[in-house]
Amino acid sequence: MSNDISKIKLKKISAELFKPFGDLLALKDAPDLIINHGMCERHHNLATIEFDKGGKPGISLFNAEPRKLPYTLKMMERHPKGSQAFIPMYEQPFLVIVAIDEGGKPARPNAFLTEPNVGINFHKNIWHGVLTPLHSPGIFAVFDRIATDTNLEEYWFKNPYTIF
Amino acid sequence: MSNDISKIKLKKISAELFKPFGDLLALKDAPDLIINHGMCERHHNLATIEFDKGGKPGISLFNAEPRKLPYTLKMMERHPKGSQAFIPMYEQPFLVIVAIDEGGKPARPNAFLTEPNVGINFHKNIWHGVLTPLHSPGIFAVFDRIATDTNLEEYWFKNPYTIF
Repeated sequence: MSNDISKIKLKKISAELFKPFGDLLALKDAPDLIINHGMCERHHNLATIEFDKGGKPGISLFNAEPRKLPYTLKMMERHPKGSQAFIPMYEQPFLVIVAIDEGGKPARPNAFLTEPNVGINFHKNIWHGVLTPLHSPGIFAVFDRIATDTNLEEYWFKNPYTIF
Repeated sequence: MSNDISKIKLKKISAELFKPFGDLLALKDAPDLIINHGMCERHHNLATIEFDKGGKPGISLFNAEPRKLPYTLKMMERHPKGSQAFIPMYEQPFLVIVAIDEGGKPARPNAFLTEPNVGINFHKNIWHGVLTPLHSPGIFAVFDRIATDTNLEEYWFKNPYTIF
């Protein structure tokens, strides 16, 4: 129980902290433009979307099993051919786990808790944990590259981490 | 007050009714595949996304003024160069107004009410009303074509419609 290196404390997500890994899909301090004859703010182009050739943009829904804290992180994955955005369909925070790459495998992970009504976009080829809602139903709109070629790499930790 | 032709009754949206105009972003009856080692359903590729050359896919947030029923529909618009998807960031139904094209202008509109936790995708060049939430905050994730060229056509009705 004293193996502190295996324990990772959740942090509240912010655009700043999440920047090395992706984009926070939240209102900016001010809109980029006003549209619809004054009735709507447009907070424009919030995410770095990249889809390699051989695929096309698409919208899917994911319905994931809610998890509980503390959460055991055994595996991380990345998608070398495209970014992947997650927008919660229910007003609940969710767990976002990311890591920079260190010689082809994830470095020590970072664990973030989102705020309700905020989505995220993982940049292309960023190591991340699988979709981990903390509440039911764990339904998300996902905007990613639609293709049939292989676009998934998994890394299983010899020693799992505990997120708390 | 007896001008019935100007009054349009709201219908509950369904994939079937909405099909001529776009896609409902809702779970299918069954997932297309199970991912993340059994922990997540993927309801795959729910929308016909089309972005003409000269633009790229992007995610923005719209923050629209909530409207009240009955709603006066004075104008419809279309985007000839791309589809446009709307995902509510709050669990509230919203108003979706669409029309088929009739000689370069919208035919008699259809007005739909969504269910909470469901998004929609307007197909490319489909006449639609501007984003009309009925509740505050009217914040939506929008997935559309990012570009600087003109991609908006408006049609103003001589005789506005009343949606009720």
